Amino acid sequence: MALSKHKQDITKKNYLVEAEQKIQLQVSDKVIQIFTPSNGSVSVERDMDVQINTLVDEFLGASIANTDMAFNKVIENFTESQIPVEPDSFDNYIEYLADNVIDNSIHTSSPRFIGHMTSALPCFVRPLAKLMMAMNQNVVKIETAKAFSPYERQALAMMHRLIYNFPDNFYSQHIQNSQSTLGILASGGTAANIIALWCSRNALLGAKDDFVGVEKSGLAAALDFYGYKGAVIIGSELMHYSFDKAADLLGIGTQGLIKVPTDSNNQVNLRALRQAVADCRAQNLLIIAIVGVAGTTDSGNVDPLWEIAEIASSANIHFHVDAAWGGPLIFSEQHRLKLAGIERADSVTIDGHKQLYLPMGIGMVFLREPQFASSIEKNACYTMRKGSFDLGKRALEGSRPGMALFLHAGLNLIGLKGYEFLIDEGIRKTQYMAACISVKPEFELLAEPDMNLLLYRYIPEPLRELALQKQLTETDNQKISQFNEYLQKAQRQAGRTFISRTTKTSTCFGQSITITALRAVIANPLTTEDDIDAVLIDQIQIASELSMPDFLNLAEIVA
Amino acid sequence: MALSKHKQDITKKNYLVEAEQKIQLQVSDKVIQIFTPSNGSVSVERDMDVQINTLVDEFLGASIANTDMAFNKVIENFTESQIPVEPDSFDNYIEYLADNVIDNSIHTSSPRFIGHMTSALPCFVRPLAKLMMAMNQNVVKIETAKAFSPYERQALAMMHRLIYNFPDNFYSQHIQNSQSTLGILASGGTAANIIALWCSRNALLGAKDDFVGVEKSGLAAALDFYGYKGAVIIGSELMHYSFDKAADLLGIGTQGLIKVPTDSNNQVNLRALRQAVADCRAQNLLIIAIVGVAGTTDSGNVDPLWEIAEIASSANIHFHVDAAWGGPLIFSEQHRLKLAGIERADSVTIDGHKQLYLPMGIGMVFLREPQFASSIEKNACYTMRKGSFDLGKRALEGSRPGMALFLHAGLNLIGLKGYEFLIDEGIRKTQYMAACISVKPEFELLAEPDMNLLLYRYIPEPLRELALQKQLTETDNQKISQFNEYLQKAQRQAGRTFISRTTKTSTCFGQSITITALRAVIANPLTTEDDIDAVLIDQIQIASELSMPDFLNLAEIVA
Repeated sequence: MALSKHKQDITKKNYLVEAEQKIQLQVSDKVIQIFTPSNGSVSVERDMDVQINTLVDEFLGASIANTDMAFNKVIENFTESQIPVEPDSFDNYIEYLADNVIDNSIHTSSPRFIGHMTSALPCFVRPLAKLMMAMNQNVVKIETAKAFSPYERQALAMMHRLIYNFPDNFYSQHIQNSQSTLGILASGGTAANIIALWCSRNALLGAKDDFVGVEKSGLAAALDFYGYKGAVIIGSELMHYSFDKAADLLGIGTQGLIKVPTDSNNQVNLRALRQAVADCRAQNLLIIAIVGVAGTTDSGNVDPLWEIAEIASSANIHFHVDAAWGGPLIFSEQHRLKLAGIERADSVTIDGHKQLYLPMGIGMVFLREPQFASSIEKNACYTMRKGSFDLGKRALEGSRPGMALFLHAGLNLIGLKGYEFLIDEGIRKTQYMAACISVKPEFELLAEPDMNLLLYRYIPEPLRELALQKQLTETDNQKISQFNEYLQKAQRQAGRTFISRTTKTSTCFGQSITITALRAVIANPLTTEDDIDAVLIDQIQIASELSMPDFLNLAEIVA
Repeated sequence: MALSKHKQDITKKNYLVEAEQKIQLQVSDKVIQIFTPSNGSVSVERDMDVQINTLVDEFLGASIANTDMAFNKVIENFTESQIPVEPDSFDNYIEYLADNVIDNSIHTSSPRFIGHMTSALPCFVRPLAKLMMAMNQNVVKIETAKAFSPYERQALAMMHRLIYNFPDNFYSQHIQNSQSTLGILASGGTAANIIALWCSRNALLGAKDDFVGVEKSGLAAALDFYGYKGAVIIGSELMHYSFDKAADLLGIGTQGLIKVPTDSNNQVNLRALRQAVADCRAQNLLIIAIVGVAGTTDSGNVDPLWEIAEIASSANIHFHVDAAWGGPLIFSEQHRLKLAGIERADSVTIDGHKQLYLPMGIGMVFLREPQFASSIEKNACYTMRKGSFDLGKRALEGSRPGMALFLHAGLNLIGLKGYEFLIDEGIRKTQYMAACISVKPEFELLAEPDMNLLLYRYIPEPLRELALQKQLTETDNQKISQFNEYLQKAQRQAGRTFISRTTKTSTCFGQSITITALRAVIANPLTTEDDIDAVLIDQIQIASELSMPDFLNLAEIVA
């Protein structure tokens, strides 16, 4: 290499290094700026806040369920897989968000989005979310969550008391006792159900004599030691799919999830349940829990909890109630009777992000026996030391945000009476919708609602007479199911209103068949009777357009 | 009962009913009001927003780690277990929050809170949190998360590419393919680690011939069918405690968590690892995974990932890397070599809420093989139908918030260069702190830092000479450990600064002993060299006050 060339290279290299440093400096300035807290009204954060407020107002103000952009089109905006080298500006990113993400998101708070268990939230969750982010407490241990640890315990104890209503001295003894666990806050109802069954499995197969217990030995050795042929969980066939996950995860296997048939009202058949218990006992299978469903995901029906409690307690079996959806009925003087027996459960799951109207990420499991969760306790040398107050020692998760803020705020800012109003109104409006459906020839109500979920279907004109006379054949039903599936998709695509769909077991000339059902969930406090009318009118309108050519060929027309 | 009395009662009852209705009306008004979106600048929500902004600014502006209120005192504020009957006002509740919760919370963002993996967050997470709450998307299914489903997939694919760096066509093929799963977003690193091992367990013990697979049959039957005596997970003794949870949950048992000794640098001993693999094979135990640790929780050391990958691949064993803490080193040109071999992992855990500086609740597991997660797929008739785009079909959790917003925003607003700066700076400042500790007679550095975690301890004056000469006896070490434990508690209590503590294995006259270590985590971008000096000076000050009477009796003095 000639010397001049070498010098040139060095100069070039120096220049590049300088340029690199310059870019580096700019990046470091930008980064430090975004970590520096704002001090007053003028700051990057406040600018962003104002822009976000506008977007929030626009999004919440819309009455549509979603835009009519096809999902395949939406996907096309998200195919880049490289992380940008330089930090983008807030303004650019907010514009990007508005155009690509917010515009094509579901208006879950729309009064006419009445198809899923996600709806409008109270306004206080928005400023509180900012506070939670600013505080950034990690509830796994008190060293990162000083007030938040007892604060979360308190909020959970309030819910525990609502369910179990033990005397004052029970709560004064346990509410802030580090060795007691009245409830565990988890990411959702799935985690809550898993935790309940995990506690029970470990408690039933614990250490004994020279056996170290299932936690240490594993399931195969534990079953072997205790002399069981296997382990099962028994509940209605309408148990939530999280029980499939639990049975799989816990090593029981989904075949160990004994799904007992339900009656026509979607409640577990008690005779079959008793038989299942007897069968499992006869086969020497360990029953980890009997599960009662307090609000099936499909139609909101509640199992006869009191009777299940009788079966469980007389056989000395753990009784778990999955009240993820229906639990808050307990707030309502008028409707809490449906949950009678829940106070006899050994563990209860309730979701804050469902009928407590709190943000996603608040699953809760409540435990009758405050020491029950010790069966899953874990310790570590850097945290959650034995005897400590750290909430992480009895939990599925580790690091966890201070979601208790929303729960505690909800219980205080909505209160017993406020939640009662929300529950009562949802059920009242569902009854209104059921009445509307009953009198419209276009629809068939598939079951009287037990709560605020409603199953129905659209009957295309040529088949209405047969439907009325209960003379639909299985083929007719298949055609109707196809039509309803297509109607639901077309309605979702149009975006003005929204109803979900599911499948339901029905009887056709004495035979059990599966039909497609439209599924309404009336939980949004902002949904009025007018909105309900509008949703049904929209469906009739869409259906009439669909049926014009030849609805019988629809299945072929649609991919 | 006399008629007049009866009339009186009726009147009284009517009056009560009316009063009840009146309260009911007020409650319903209040409730509807808090669900009604604000339309413009004047609203309940905006009022609350302004108040919260003030609290946020105050909280973030404080330099202390926490107030000196004793934890037992804090607890006393949270002993009420009744839910209020009437909705409380926002003003009242915010005042309550300020006095009882915020004032006694940990300033995790303080530049002098350098003891845990929780630190300052970038300012954009606060307005974005409000947006996420307003949108309230449920990522379990596209019907409640239209844009958010492909948006989350994109953010995860960007991280996947950073780790694996497969060619363009790999990403264009899989990024938005509903049958491919490049990553799963979960509530935290614990869930992410559990998911990785769950996938592997189910894939290894899948359906074969007439066997239905572990998912359906359970673990005992699966081990039996495949002819294994048991199942194990192999990794360093410094694996995070989430692996204990995983082994317990999955039915393997924590005794099946084979903890291989580490060398003095806290890295797994490779010879012992090879031996463990051979032993398990010889004992006919199924090895579900070999775990490599990329950043031990205690001291941030990284296992020799490349060599572990060699061992795993030559024995055809699933290789999982727990890079919950250390994963983001990959952003740094200077430091990514420490992770060499991570790209050979079959699955990798990274926490967004650690070194990606995102809010709590962003655990991620990345999968080399896009079809790998099909082994845990679940479906339901009302959602996550087979073949659907719904993200919930391959997940531990069900309903889940749109946390991808923060991940995607972080990757764009901080960018590759920004994250590189954050990583480099943390490590540079940790080296500064190590240098300070080395020259101060009061402290002993317990290990050269590998990353941005630092273990050291205070040596009380009477023992310094012995410590320098490496002549401390086991009893001396016990006294020093007691002193450091008390020092850490006293510093935490004083609240000006914060360092955590852990235990560490050390050598004393050829014997292995356990000592207490002070543990610094230098991750806060706002922490300066001055802050580091201040933390050490604070410790020296507190220690000098402690040792004044007779530090040897301290253990008796403190409860």
